[in-house]
Amino acid sequence: MKRLISWLCVLALVLACAPASLAEGQATPKYVFMFIGDGMGNPQVTATQYYLGSIENPDSPYPVPANLSFTDFPYLGMVTTYDASSFCPDSASTATSMATGEKTLSGVINYDVTLTTPFKLITEYAREAGKKIGVISSVSVDHATPAAYYAKQPSRNDYYEIAVQGITGDTVDFLAGGGFKKPTGANRDQTDILELAREYGWIITESNEEVRSLSAESGRVLAVNPVLQDSKAIHYEIDRERLAAQGEDILSLADFVSAGIRVLDNENGFFLMCEGGKIDWAGHANDAATSIHETMALSDAVQVAVDFAAEHPDETLIIVTADHETGGMTIGFATTAYDTHFTYLTRQTISFTDFDGVIASHRDKQATFDEGLAAVETYYGLTTVPDQALTLTEGDVESLRAAWDESMKPAEERENGAQEQLLYGGYEPFSMAVSHIMNNKAGLSYTSYAHTGLQIPVYAMGVGAERFSGLYDNTDIFSRTMEVMGLSK
Amino acid sequence: MKRLISWLCVLALVLACAPASLAEGQATPKYVFMFIGDGMGNPQVTATQYYLGSIENPDSPYPVPANLSFTDFPYLGMVTTYDASSFCPDSASTATSMATGEKTLSGVINYDVTLTTPFKLITEYAREAGKKIGVISSVSVDHATPAAYYAKQPSRNDYYEIAVQGITGDTVDFLAGGGFKKPTGANRDQTDILELAREYGWIITESNEEVRSLSAESGRVLAVNPVLQDSKAIHYEIDRERLAAQGEDILSLADFVSAGIRVLDNENGFFLMCEGGKIDWAGHANDAATSIHETMALSDAVQVAVDFAAEHPDETLIIVTADHETGGMTIGFATTAYDTHFTYLTRQTISFTDFDGVIASHRDKQATFDEGLAAVETYYGLTTVPDQALTLTEGDVESLRAAWDESMKPAEERENGAQEQLLYGGYEPFSMAVSHIMNNKAGLSYTSYAHTGLQIPVYAMGVGAERFSGLYDNTDIFSRTMEVMGLSK
Repeated sequence: MKRLISWLCVLALVLACAPASLAEGQATPKYVFMFIGDGMGNPQVTATQYYLGSIENPDSPYPVPANLSFTDFPYLGMVTTYDASSFCPDSASTATSMATGEKTLSGVINYDVTLTTPFKLITEYAREAGKKIGVISSVSVDHATPAAYYAKQPSRNDYYEIAVQGITGDTVDFLAGGGFKKPTGANRDQTDILELAREYGWIITESNEEVRSLSAESGRVLAVNPVLQDSKAIHYEIDRERLAAQGEDILSLADFVSAGIRVLDNENGFFLMCEGGKIDWAGHANDAATSIHETMALSDAVQVAVDFAAEHPDETLIIVTADHETGGMTIGFATTAYDTHFTYLTRQTISFTDFDGVIASHRDKQATFDEGLAAVETYYGLTTVPDQALTLTEGDVESLRAAWDESMKPAEERENGAQEQLLYGGYEPFSMAVSHIMNNKAGLSYTSYAHTGLQIPVYAMGVGAERFSGLYDNTDIFSRTMEVMGLSK
Repeated sequence: MKRLISWLCVLALVLACAPASLAEGQATPKYVFMFIGDGMGNPQVTATQYYLGSIENPDSPYPVPANLSFTDFPYLGMVTTYDASSFCPDSASTATSMATGEKTLSGVINYDVTLTTPFKLITEYAREAGKKIGVISSVSVDHATPAAYYAKQPSRNDYYEIAVQGITGDTVDFLAGGGFKKPTGANRDQTDILELAREYGWIITESNEEVRSLSAESGRVLAVNPVLQDSKAIHYEIDRERLAAQGEDILSLADFVSAGIRVLDNENGFFLMCEGGKIDWAGHANDAATSIHETMALSDAVQVAVDFAAEHPDETLIIVTADHETGGMTIGFATTAYDTHFTYLTRQTISFTDFDGVIASHRDKQATFDEGLAAVETYYGLTTVPDQALTLTEGDVESLRAAWDESMKPAEERENGAQEQLLYGGYEPFSMAVSHIMNNKAGLSYTSYAHTGLQIPVYAMGVGAERFSGLYDNTDIFSRTMEVMGLSK
């Protein structure tokens, strides 16, 4: 008896002494969500928190930030993002780092720097462990970030080849969001990707209702949003909201996460990557309000996972991160100094892309500058009426007029020197001039039309989330996720 | 016997189950270092890592970042910095948050928003717990950040009143680095602060040798760097290095940390706050190379604490953070896009401040623009010789000429409209034009001459450092430090 008690005592001690390591050894998440805000650096997240805090607390005498669905996650990391080409990397190399743990050149999807050796993806390891795999993006599903979770291609620009790998391979069970950039190949002479998908047994949704009624019984699903905007991407959230107010029913990124969960749920769990791809595009175009709405759309998509985690608290890991920062966004501008006016941004109800369309129709009908200014007032609230919050200064009007004159020319007649590159970055001049004025009045600014070298944040909650604390490299997102999932190379 | 074994077993279990909480309850750091890089956001730190990595690995085909003394600390946090006035706060309010756990208005040192109720400082709590207190800054010791660790004043601009509180109060044992901005008061009619310090029994160092020979026997020490630069601050590191190469012996921030440790070491331990104050000043002036050298100087100062911690591993906590980001620095610029050229910055050997002096002497002797260009080549390597890495473009020369024409005018005759504010931010036009060209050629840029609203990093190592992980508010730096030190309000 004494021996038994002693033995039990020792056993109890052993168990008691090692709860952390045993728990770490045992508890692996059944459900893993990996959200990537493309181009979503700290400035983009913080600006969205300050925007929401400002509009939700209009009477507060003090600044009040709001939380997004993920900014109060219990664990935070920061990662370096440089790739083998540059301190300012691209989405292909950074997604490769996160999907495989390897650095490569900008533009490369899951191949090494010599472009000869492919890497094995976390989704392949997860698949071997019995998990179902989902890949969602708000941009085309053959774009660099989603591609890196199912394809291997020396060039991110080989859209058709990437799509074919996704459709004919066996890595992905749910591919959703945007469409395909080159559905019949670069020369439009290949089998249509949707035809190929049917051949390979994919269920292809064709309406919002079909997406909304997807379930675990649906099989392998290709769910392209029936209504797309530019480059086969889902609408910018700011435009989706304007169109929704007019009665249009356009599925959001969150709708696809919800559908993905329903399709993928099974006894072995799943790995679901979801990209908010147009935060990056808004950053390239220096469109702060659109960037903020895109970040809100990603936050809404993450909320779906958070709600799912509430129902599966001991089985779910949610990681929210980014690939790089885009645009060099900062909260603060030379002439506004310590002041910000986030509420001004509520007056903007259009993305630069849809505004480009407005400008194009004005160009077609040879509209006057005053008609251009009227469009600016309609969509941005910027006005020539004196003494308003958003009154255009003489300098503003001068900038707008110069940009208007450029925008009214056919593309081939436009100036394209260093000065134009600096002012408009190759975008529609009038859209850029309006965005810069809007940003600056709100107290925001950008330095670049490209990606920058800033570290980016990692937010984590759930099983194993503590492993994502600290300062590390983006390749460690792969190794830490693998470790937490109990997978090894 | 059975009972005894059972009882022992339970005791063993209890002890085994609660190692973490017991350890947390017991282990408080004897030595606490709090480093504040004023204006040191993530961009400033990362740019310094990329600069050092670039110059240390000149032959690497791939980008390689370097570590600073604190970037590989085991724990990382990010904090929000907004104050009660603005999302873009100042050093007074943010230092108040870190020193007292309270938000207040910009410009206020340790008073509430009504300017009537003073707060109690972490240094006062630490002092009551028997610790010695040190306050070091590379700028004047009556400046906002150091002031917040010993004074309470509704306005940060009351430099003399702040200094008097430090000298006549009993909070600080070691006050060092820069000098006093208003040593005889705003109207120069008060008792000289050094005289007051002597009255109150301070030991006042008067030479580098005296600073270097300070020890635990020195008593209460006021150690102003015998050689100062602008506004009673220590020289910019970039200038200190140039002058050192010419044989001048100027004490660095690290020298004062070293002296502080010697003076403060005692059986009850110490709390030592050290500010790198000119990272901020370089940020305001958009001078990237100077910012990077200032960050390196702070890193060197932290290294002294890291070396000390190696000798006192179970007794030391080191926190390295910032108050806010300054300048909206980004790694990336519109026309360099994905390229960076950090090594170009090695050609800059002067701060904007010392270059302002060069410009002033040119103005005095009515120098020509060509003489100005020659100075630019001497101190920045920017040249009109064609086809060099740092060859000035025609556009660059045009910008420089416009700035030169402004700089050669007496201050009262200069233009001061929105355009000049945007281009020069109230600084010496020629210095600003040179800095902007230099930054942009290196692939760096700024958006503002003020502070920005970005979150800023917290790096921690040592006893209790794990409490500084995650995303929180700057007021929590106070509460977490208090908790780790075993102090309560």
